Amino acid sequence: MASFSPLIADDLAVNTIRTLAADVVGKANSGHPGAPMGMAPAAHVLFTRFFNANPKNSKWFNRDRFVLSNGCALQYILLHLLGYKLTMDDLKQFRQIGSKTPGHPEAGHTDGIEVTTGPLGQGISSAVGLAIAQAHFAAVYNKEGFDLINNYTYVFTGDGCLMEGVSSEAASLAGHLKLGNLIVVYDDNHISIDGDTAAAFTENVEARFLAYGWQVLHVDDGDHDLAGIHNAIAEARKEKEKPTIIRLRTTIGYGSKLEGTHGVHGAPLKADDIASLKTKFNFPADKTFYVPDETYKIYSDVVVRGADLEAKWNDLLAAYGRKYPNEHAELTRRISGELPAGWESFLPVYTPADPAQASRKLSEIVLAAVYPKIPDLIGGSADLTGSNLTRVKGHKDFQHPSTGLGDYSGTYIRYGVREHAMGAIANGLAAYGGIVPYIGTFLNFVSYAAGAVRLSALSGHQVIWVATHDSIGLGEDGPTHQPVETLAHFRATPNIDVWRPADGNETSAAYLVALRSKTTPSILSLSRQNLPNLEGSTIEKASKGGYVVHEEEGEDLTIVSCGSEVSIVLEAASKLKAEGIKTRVVSLPSWSVFDRQEESYKLSVLRSGAPILSVEALSTLGWQKYSHEQYGLKAWGSSGPYQKVYEHFGITGSNLAVVGKKIVDFYKKKGIPVVSPLDKAIHL
Amino acid sequence: MASFSPLIADDLAVNTIRTLAADVVGKANSGHPGAPMGMAPAAHVLFTRFFNANPKNSKWFNRDRFVLSNGCALQYILLHLLGYKLTMDDLKQFRQIGSKTPGHPEAGHTDGIEVTTGPLGQGISSAVGLAIAQAHFAAVYNKEGFDLINNYTYVFTGDGCLMEGVSSEAASLAGHLKLGNLIVVYDDNHISIDGDTAAAFTENVEARFLAYGWQVLHVDDGDHDLAGIHNAIAEARKEKEKPTIIRLRTTIGYGSKLEGTHGVHGAPLKADDIASLKTKFNFPADKTFYVPDETYKIYSDVVVRGADLEAKWNDLLAAYGRKYPNEHAELTRRISGELPAGWESFLPVYTPADPAQASRKLSEIVLAAVYPKIPDLIGGSADLTGSNLTRVKGHKDFQHPSTGLGDYSGTYIRYGVREHAMGAIANGLAAYGGIVPYIGTFLNFVSYAAGAVRLSALSGHQVIWVATHDSIGLGEDGPTHQPVETLAHFRATPNIDVWRPADGNETSAAYLVALRSKTTPSILSLSRQNLPNLEGSTIEKASKGGYVVHEEEGEDLTIVSCGSEVSIVLEAASKLKAEGIKTRVVSLPSWSVFDRQEESYKLSVLRSGAPILSVEALSTLGWQKYSHEQYGLKAWGSSGPYQKVYEHFGITGSNLAVVGKKIVDFYKKKGIPVVSPLDKAIHL
Repeated sequence: MASFSPLIADDLAVNTIRTLAADVVGKANSGHPGAPMGMAPAAHVLFTRFFNANPKNSKWFNRDRFVLSNGCALQYILLHLLGYKLTMDDLKQFRQIGSKTPGHPEAGHTDGIEVTTGPLGQGISSAVGLAIAQAHFAAVYNKEGFDLINNYTYVFTGDGCLMEGVSSEAASLAGHLKLGNLIVVYDDNHISIDGDTAAAFTENVEARFLAYGWQVLHVDDGDHDLAGIHNAIAEARKEKEKPTIIRLRTTIGYGSKLEGTHGVHGAPLKADDIASLKTKFNFPADKTFYVPDETYKIYSDVVVRGADLEAKWNDLLAAYGRKYPNEHAELTRRISGELPAGWESFLPVYTPADPAQASRKLSEIVLAAVYPKIPDLIGGSADLTGSNLTRVKGHKDFQHPSTGLGDYSGTYIRYGVREHAMGAIANGLAAYGGIVPYIGTFLNFVSYAAGAVRLSALSGHQVIWVATHDSIGLGEDGPTHQPVETLAHFRATPNIDVWRPADGNETSAAYLVALRSKTTPSILSLSRQNLPNLEGSTIEKASKGGYVVHEEEGEDLTIVSCGSEVSIVLEAASKLKAEGIKTRVVSLPSWSVFDRQEESYKLSVLRSGAPILSVEALSTLGWQKYSHEQYGLKAWGSSGPYQKVYEHFGITGSNLAVVGKKIVDFYKKKGIPVVSPLDKAIHL
Repeated sequence: MASFSPLIADDLAVNTIRTLAADVVGKANSGHPGAPMGMAPAAHVLFTRFFNANPKNSKWFNRDRFVLSNGCALQYILLHLLGYKLTMDDLKQFRQIGSKTPGHPEAGHTDGIEVTTGPLGQGISSAVGLAIAQAHFAAVYNKEGFDLINNYTYVFTGDGCLMEGVSSEAASLAGHLKLGNLIVVYDDNHISIDGDTAAAFTENVEARFLAYGWQVLHVDDGDHDLAGIHNAIAEARKEKEKPTIIRLRTTIGYGSKLEGTHGVHGAPLKADDIASLKTKFNFPADKTFYVPDETYKIYSDVVVRGADLEAKWNDLLAAYGRKYPNEHAELTRRISGELPAGWESFLPVYTPADPAQASRKLSEIVLAAVYPKIPDLIGGSADLTGSNLTRVKGHKDFQHPSTGLGDYSGTYIRYGVREHAMGAIANGLAAYGGIVPYIGTFLNFVSYAAGAVRLSALSGHQVIWVATHDSIGLGEDGPTHQPVETLAHFRATPNIDVWRPADGNETSAAYLVALRSKTTPSILSLSRQNLPNLEGSTIEKASKGGYVVHEEEGEDLTIVSCGSEVSIVLEAASKLKAEGIKTRVVSLPSWSVFDRQEESYKLSVLRSGAPILSVEALSTLGWQKYSHEQYGLKAWGSSGPYQKVYEHFGITGSNLAVVGKKIVDFYKKKGIPVVSPLDKAIHL
């Protein structure tokens, strides 16, 4: 890299970003002008001098990834200047309904946004996933003379992101994994919403990242020292065995009358301040959204460079294809986002004659069957591998080779006890492309990662949670580990498929739909304890999210259930039948998938005519949507051998038969026709 | 502190703990023997030589607090040896239903347990709250010659807890706050469930804690070096300006054939291994649950010392009362857990003539009114003070005096952007006693703290979340910040009162019930936008959790709603009335509180006879419990000015009137009597 001499045009461009930030936030009358104004120099140097991407094809696979962890208007301004599909009018629509420029950047919504940011700590953590993905693709596909996958992941982050625990988890793991392709620029502006960071954040951030095993650099005058920024990024790129964090001392809202205070953090600049800012930078004070031609010119050079880079890369890829046709075929298939044809045929199928097994074990059997067919699968667990059963025969760990424990071609990640970072990293892995991450922990501890799970769903990242030990059925660990509220939480989250399979075929169905759902994350809620294979379950039926597992004509009662309780409910139905009460049983492994079926199908499964009782060993909240009566946990679980815990809470065939009879009597006595809970006026 | 010479009796006691751990876990055939066996020496030294507590009165206020962050059987064994209300039979009932010894220690369940642990990272983080509480009480009440509150908080923690982000957040804040009363012993045994920590956790923990501003000590042979452990704890106690972490190198499962491997982490030792262990330690191999008399003797000396300490402290407190009667009265009141008499009379009362205000502002008004009356209130925010409106006139920050920003007598904590630690620290503050913590963030980011919220509820800690910006009403920040699933999650959690007040009186009611609920946490879901004060709301009515805010006899429709949507629903009802459709409106600010009312009252509020429609600008999940039809958000929110976002989603008086009419027609056409959704066979 040649030495760097900033030009007048560079200063002009930097100030363009600053004044644009003031205008964008000012017009919206909402947003965060301070960080864009402070980080304009770093953004300018990074994007004009280092960033390898083709704005005209934001999906070019070997592009550098950029993550603005403290997601704000800066990214939109850059996307516009760089020539992504984001016009000046889009900037003027900042924070307006239906615009490409919502309050914080959303992946899948705006061209050029890699991962959703704004919720603090998520961006930098997902960036670790982006960096892992690059390292993995390079290890698998690069060959002598074919340095095909060699992009960097750049992150801008602020104090807020670094205070969040999720970023600590991710940074510790990134250091462990020696991700030399990850470069973080830390906007050390000493200001957060509450004011000076002296009030709450006085740790030595540099020393902390050194402790994680990172390279730590710093630039003392981030407001002006473009050459210093340039040199730091260049040095970061040279370090191949460690991630780098560059501490950049900046002035938040640089140029504003309120620069350096939290007054410019989250509120628009006043009109006179914007005018004064423009005057200070020799910009026309009466013009808004003004971009000098010289600035567009500098950025258009980036576009030319990017198009050229991609063209050369495409040539390289073609040559690679001639020399390594198999690898080429696999790589291009993965880039396309299609899974290998025919993988579905390897899903295990069961009959009632097959032995009872825990659904976590059934999940392991699926993974063992499909993993050799789908190299896109990257597994892992938050230190519960032997419990989640996420690591199968043939797996190699993703580790730096110096550890002797694996290498970067490995497809199993040891996340450590870091659920939240695991979720965020998985978002990054999915966002990179060509990877379907699955990640394991106890269902109860998916809640630790709620912030990341939400962004999987909002961003449409195909992340699969292998969430085992999913109820009181985990037994002895007791209430601290037994989920109660967890599935209500995730069932209420848009664009997540929660699956709670009852047996082998249903577990296969869960994976079938989860692996086909390219823009929807899934949570597979799996039992610790053994479950019998059901008469009447098939992959096809279960793939509808809900189906009749035991039919009775002219029923007195339908019981709807899922997961480990379905076999118990079938026992109850059998006992009720002996008493002359005809009881249908519906298995509803996935509410959201069932909701997507045709109305007539849904009404045939949960039909009118007899009361419907739901049974699940969790909170009953939400089951009212599918049933008239609900049985489940009223409060916390209990510590003990699981069979005894089930007995304690009355979730047994015998007790449910008593409950069922009570319900049948109640509705008979009422003497009113019983209408399906799905037969409603309003369907949102 | 005199120099320390370990006796034969000490070694015997240490090995007693080890063999007991093997027996306790062995009998339960479930649990974690390794950590207790490794940490037995540290536990023995701490409890016999340093720990100031009276096992016969586990609630003595100035007791040292002990937190076993990696919650396991070790704590039960110690409680038994120390003479707390935990018999040998209780140890034999480890992990059995209804026992005092569930899988992981639960506060409020077992005598002597300060905070619930097991879910990793929570214990050490809550301990920061315990330490803050001590520092605060000392600053407020200690006087020259009356060092009344001077206890330490001791924590044992393992690798798992230190990998969790929540502990990083809490440790950073503890360093910032210079909590010299906090002493953490880190069980550095190099093993987690997945095996050697070399696979995922290779950061330099000592350097990281130095970066946080902690004192860092270490003991290289934690298996044998009792004197070294003693000296380290003594040194930690001397450091008054920094928390201390002592890295103790131990062998997990010391004495087992599998010592030093993850084989002893989470599974019982085999019978022959237990026998060999006992033989190795010269214990009778055929005896189980064996405690030598010498060991009971050492621990009974602790009881004598503790009783003596408390007696002397009681004398000191009495003398303090004679010299400082006011402070004494306040302190003893706080210790008793009673709030000052008559505080309720300061709750603001509103009429419809009062101006519309945001419920976050109404919350601030309550806090400003009651804060001077209730010194027990310790406020704070995760860096959103100006948005949450949690800091009121007269507040001083809780800071180390050297910062110049406050002192330890301050009652407002700057938590930084650390929601999860904030939740866990608040649990510690509540667990200490005499403190009612309230903590602020956006509702959407309470989810970051889900792990801690769950333990508030499970442990019965009175923690109040001031959760503002509670819907699409936050407007411009958009989908990344607009909660959808959040309240379904917490409404499904046992023992949490979620409040979503509609106006001033309802906000006062929420505080009234939350402040009276000594063993239930509350989440106050508050609007960013202004809300009118309703005709017909009163504190008394809202305190029931639900009430008729607009009555109509012979109604065609009831609409049930809460929070910012109630006034919109009232507008819809008015429009419907103009069309001849009589519409009652029910405000349901707290489901759980409403659920606790008399059946007849509930059935009178949500009565049979006409369809009930629910309206909330969140996921509809769960509203089926209280309504026949539901209107809300189907998916994510949208970024824009809030009024436009409401319009976009059809949550307006006009559109809801259309929806309401459709529902009335639908049920008329159906021609079946409409029964209240609360009229059911099963009431869990």
